[in-house]
Amino acid sequence: MQVGILGGGQLGRMLALAGRPLGLRFRFLEPKTPAPVDDLGTVVRAAYHDPYALDRFAEGLDVVTYEFENVPVASARHLEARVPVHPTSRALEVGQDRVAEKEAFVGAGIPTAPFRGVGSVEALREAARDIGFPLVLKTRRLGYDGKGQAIVQDDGALEAAWRSLGSVDLLAEAFVPFRRELSIVAARGYDGVCAFYPVVENLHRSGILVRTTAPAPEMVPGLQDAAEIYARRLLEHFGYIGVLAVELFEVDGALLANELAPRVHNSGHWTQDGAETSQFENHLRAICGLPLGSTSVIGPTVMLNLLGAIPEPVSVLEIPGTHLHLYDKGPRAGRKVGHVNVRTRGPGDLARSVARVETLLGP
Amino acid sequence: MQVGILGGGQLGRMLALAGRPLGLRFRFLEPKTPAPVDDLGTVVRAAYHDPYALDRFAEGLDVVTYEFENVPVASARHLEARVPVHPTSRALEVGQDRVAEKEAFVGAGIPTAPFRGVGSVEALREAARDIGFPLVLKTRRLGYDGKGQAIVQDDGALEAAWRSLGSVDLLAEAFVPFRRELSIVAARGYDGVCAFYPVVENLHRSGILVRTTAPAPEMVPGLQDAAEIYARRLLEHFGYIGVLAVELFEVDGALLANELAPRVHNSGHWTQDGAETSQFENHLRAICGLPLGSTSVIGPTVMLNLLGAIPEPVSVLEIPGTHLHLYDKGPRAGRKVGHVNVRTRGPGDLARSVARVETLLGP
Repeated sequence: MQVGILGGGQLGRMLALAGRPLGLRFRFLEPKTPAPVDDLGTVVRAAYHDPYALDRFAEGLDVVTYEFENVPVASARHLEARVPVHPTSRALEVGQDRVAEKEAFVGAGIPTAPFRGVGSVEALREAARDIGFPLVLKTRRLGYDGKGQAIVQDDGALEAAWRSLGSVDLLAEAFVPFRRELSIVAARGYDGVCAFYPVVENLHRSGILVRTTAPAPEMVPGLQDAAEIYARRLLEHFGYIGVLAVELFEVDGALLANELAPRVHNSGHWTQDGAETSQFENHLRAICGLPLGSTSVIGPTVMLNLLGAIPEPVSVLEIPGTHLHLYDKGPRAGRKVGHVNVRTRGPGDLARSVARVETLLGP
Repeated sequence: MQVGILGGGQLGRMLALAGRPLGLRFRFLEPKTPAPVDDLGTVVRAAYHDPYALDRFAEGLDVVTYEFENVPVASARHLEARVPVHPTSRALEVGQDRVAEKEAFVGAGIPTAPFRGVGSVEALREAARDIGFPLVLKTRRLGYDGKGQAIVQDDGALEAAWRSLGSVDLLAEAFVPFRRELSIVAARGYDGVCAFYPVVENLHRSGILVRTTAPAPEMVPGLQDAAEIYARRLLEHFGYIGVLAVELFEVDGALLANELAPRVHNSGHWTQDGAETSQFENHLRAICGLPLGSTSVIGPTVMLNLLGAIPEPVSVLEIPGTHLHLYDKGPRAGRKVGHVNVRTRGPGDLARSVARVETLLGP
């Protein structure tokens, strides 16, 4: 089968690496060069909104998916008229709009923090009166890795925050005093069968994921079940085919949904070395009409992002239990250039190896 | 690092898939098109003995290796003058000559069946007198997957067998009434550190590997140690860098060395899903000067070759514990077009899943 991927970053790269053993071939639409997917298939170098490039890209493909969630929805619709696109443009559209995302959670019966979409300073003031402080502001669109976010502590700071975020449509939501951030990666196949990876614990720094611990330690009874129920509702709400990630807050032993990602997700990278089937393979199995693979855990795994710079591969690989995943991206402050999965036999070994890798990564 | 691979078949393909996450890039020298390595790097399409193509291939490479053991030794030597080549041309040369292979075993103190190199019918008759019947004849060069072999039961059949094998130089050896065929895959890094995968059991049909069971069941005490000692002697004998495989016969609880392969080996494919680090990654780590990864077993694994035809991927992947590895090769009788690794939680499940896959593969 010929699979088309909108986007040519590390997620596209890891999809291709997982898909070639299944006999899949890949074509990417990616405006930039060089790209992490170079030498992993054919790359159509063009803008995402170029209809002629989209037609050239679509020619002969069996299915299209994306690895980049800010692909124009119109482009996904254009392609949908020619070839199956999974997840559908509807899921993509919701994933691009933080307010629509929250509304989808509410529509699917999934608890969230109190929120409001606001399009003016006046609406923002009104939302603050209803929701209270601290108030979290996020741009409705194009935010990722903590960009386009602010926390406001009182009325006096509202207008400055509004302007600092570009005077654009915002999501305003209550600050959640969460115990920790969790996420669940789930998949749904053509046959409607769903599969769930264990809930994982995520540590962010400056809004960027730095560490995932899988499975999440100290899970209170019922939490995994709740996460699976929420993920299943979303998968069924969208008639979704493929992998979807839901970011969650744990608050007083319960879960609040924070964001969804209609694609493979950074908090699922541990599955490459820690689960029976990786999220990348399961996404491809789903969109290609193949049965989903087991989401069972091989052993507790910690994923550490490489941000900005790559430590010497020798120094990483000499640490027991490490698996290195580089993206062929040049170093740049804060940029995700790779990750290290750590899985060992015993939990003490795991903590020791993780600590050694973290030393290499610096502060 | 830029890695050059002589050959563009499935072994080159799986090396590239294992190496890209380490940040390695690949260039292949492969005369045929299409090839399993297409879209996994740059492919120089030329004959292995073309010196101009070899120079073009070598330009800018950090290290060269091979995935195909019948590359002309002169080509490896030509490249060695320009770029590090691992394993060395000496190991390649020995691996191409069944008599030199046996002599290397003897030189390294590794037991083999009685053997003789013969270059004429007369020499063959003399060898038969010394070794006895049944006598196994193999062409010294270019034999693989059971091609170029014959078993002779008595004096009268010697001349016909000599002619049927093309009247070329032969290895004549005693038929070994082995209990079973085993093999060990081992690796040696730049630092001289060696790593050994567990001994596996191999089942051949018409000289072609059809199944590997890893680790080999019912191992008598000392057998793993003996295999490791033999493999280590060979690695040190050649000052070897990379992965090497030794095929062994188990006879009366002891081991006789049969053949060596100076490369990743079909009987090591199970490591992709059954070991902490695959043979492909460890070969690359070795030749790139990186520390070797753990060769520990995740769980008992069975590898089944797909010969001649590919069953419906759906029918394979719906069987618990299966991992599919296709090579992008067209179907042709007896041709290795892929393999399935099966690993499950319990041994009963494993036997059931293996039986289900074997049903798909037919007789």
